[in-house]
Amino acid sequence: MELPERLASLANTVSSMTYRRIEELVSGHPRELYDASMHLIRAGGKRLRPLLVVLASKMYGLSLEISSWAAAAVEIFHNFTLVHDDIMDRDEFRRGVPTVHKIWGEALAIVAGDLLFAKSYEALLRLLDYGLSYERIVSAIRELTWAAATVAEGQALDVLFTSRDNVTVSEYIEMVKKKTAGLFRSSVLIGAIIAGASDDELAKLAEFAIDIGIAFQIRDDELGLVADEKTLGKPKYSDLREGKKTVLVLYALERASEEQRRIILNSLGRSSATRDELERVAKTIVEIGALDFSNKLAEEFIRKGIEALYLTNPRDHEAREMLRDLAYYVTRRSY
Amino acid sequence: MELPERLASLANTVSSMTYRRIEELVSGHPRELYDASMHLIRAGGKRLRPLLVVLASKMYGLSLEISSWAAAAVEIFHNFTLVHDDIMDRDEFRRGVPTVHKIWGEALAIVAGDLLFAKSYEALLRLLDYGLSYERIVSAIRELTWAAATVAEGQALDVLFTSRDNVTVSEYIEMVKKKTAGLFRSSVLIGAIIAGASDDELAKLAEFAIDIGIAFQIRDDELGLVADEKTLGKPKYSDLREGKKTVLVLYALERASEEQRRIILNSLGRSSATRDELERVAKTIVEIGALDFSNKLAEEFIRKGIEALYLTNPRDHEAREMLRDLAYYVTRRSY
Repeated sequence: MELPERLASLANTVSSMTYRRIEELVSGHPRELYDASMHLIRAGGKRLRPLLVVLASKMYGLSLEISSWAAAAVEIFHNFTLVHDDIMDRDEFRRGVPTVHKIWGEALAIVAGDLLFAKSYEALLRLLDYGLSYERIVSAIRELTWAAATVAEGQALDVLFTSRDNVTVSEYIEMVKKKTAGLFRSSVLIGAIIAGASDDELAKLAEFAIDIGIAFQIRDDELGLVADEKTLGKPKYSDLREGKKTVLVLYALERASEEQRRIILNSLGRSSATRDELERVAKTIVEIGALDFSNKLAEEFIRKGIEALYLTNPRDHEAREMLRDLAYYVTRRSY
Repeated sequence: MELPERLASLANTVSSMTYRRIEELVSGHPRELYDASMHLIRAGGKRLRPLLVVLASKMYGLSLEISSWAAAAVEIFHNFTLVHDDIMDRDEFRRGVPTVHKIWGEALAIVAGDLLFAKSYEALLRLLDYGLSYERIVSAIRELTWAAATVAEGQALDVLFTSRDNVTVSEYIEMVKKKTAGLFRSSVLIGAIIAGASDDELAKLAEFAIDIGIAFQIRDDELGLVADEKTLGKPKYSDLREGKKTVLVLYALERASEEQRRIILNSLGRSSATRDELERVAKTIVEIGALDFSNKLAEEFIRKGIEALYLTNPRDHEAREMLRDLAYYVTRRSY
């Protein structure tokens, strides 16, 4: 699936503007710390969350000139979580480059993540320069803080699930609702808050963003199973090797025959598992029908999310259409 | 040196009130995450930074009922840095208990630190419930954010210095000014900001807090060399074993004879160094006169800091006296 042209063009503008804001915010001494902090950001990424911020702001009439600072805040925050996540998962590659701790060591990588966390707040504070009210800025900060605590809870669940064999699909949904959808929600809400959207509008947007965030993570889990290395930017099957309880793994384990269960559990979460063994696990999971299930599950969340989006009353209807297109695009990425 | 009675009594009140605030803020699911996050906080600590906040607030007439939320914010923030610091330094004990990553593993410890970081902002946002203006809350948040970035820079310098042999005393001062004095400054300023102190007052208080923070870290470095295990709450000589470039090490290396230099460099930063070897390094450092030097250096910072404090115009002069007493106490801890 391709991005519609008007959205693709805006995505480019937002991506480069956000990057410029981030470059300005994340600079200083010592050089090693700032290089480590900028490393994944320089490597690129989809810069999807900044686009969520900007489109939500645009729906209520706020310009990119201003909303790009909030876009920078969530993108910086997202990269903070990636830096720490990679240490936790002992991942060595992301976005096609070595991870921060692989290059600068674990100690500096932890601090680089912490610095980015602080810088995400600094980005929101920049909105003061544009005459935004203190009240709106406090609301945006409150939302970022909510996301930070929520994402931490989600990450913790993700870690705890790897050592449990009885995780249910509904526990999984609860986990990704926090780990992934938390920042989707805050991206959209921060964009809308700084543009002055009412509480009523925020409630609908929150539902939209959470549903799309969950669908996004389900797709991400699918990609981890079926996409090639180049698309992933990291070694194939790392989720399986790390014993991640993705929705596909959970569904497969529930439905597996004894033989299939043995195949999966024999390699899942075993760091010494060979590529062939993991390939066989992936094949088994697909055979059980996990991909059909996860597809349907994702589609259901997308449907609900778009429905909530269309209950809003935006000033700029084109922005809402673009937000819808973006939601479809990120949750129906091809593989 | 003992705390004067009126200060000791307030310190107890502030400590228990801050703890209650923190317990309320840092609670939720999953339980393991919140237990890990509360672990060091439950273990105690001096709770010195909350007292800085409360006294600075009291200087300008703000009650403990309100300032205790800001006190909770800086104490939570401080504990976040400790959790991450212990992972970075691979320390196994603190405050007489095993460190967070020793009990819950590194992945959960990283997330616990991140959660505490978020919760420190949440604590400041609680001030909204007491009718404080959005403007003051934004100023307090800006100050906490400044501290977060500054402490990260200081931590990074601390890490980078361990692998450098040519660190100067003035580079050391620059490092501790960020790593330790950064949060001293923000504790005092946040207390004063929420109480409505003027920019003029804040500038003097900042100077006071930074000077005292530097002196505090110099004392801390001294304690690491000469205090016993019980006072430290962790194994003796861990700074030496980790190769930390404390002011004592730096001074000693500058003045050491060839033989003394050999003794120091042979064990400094070598994880396999025996207790006896490190004991000999410590003895050598003291023989060179490093302790006399660091004592004089600390006293100079204390003098300058107290001078700045007495340029302020507080409403509550007793609070200022207590702040002075506290500054003397924490920078002249006996050993």
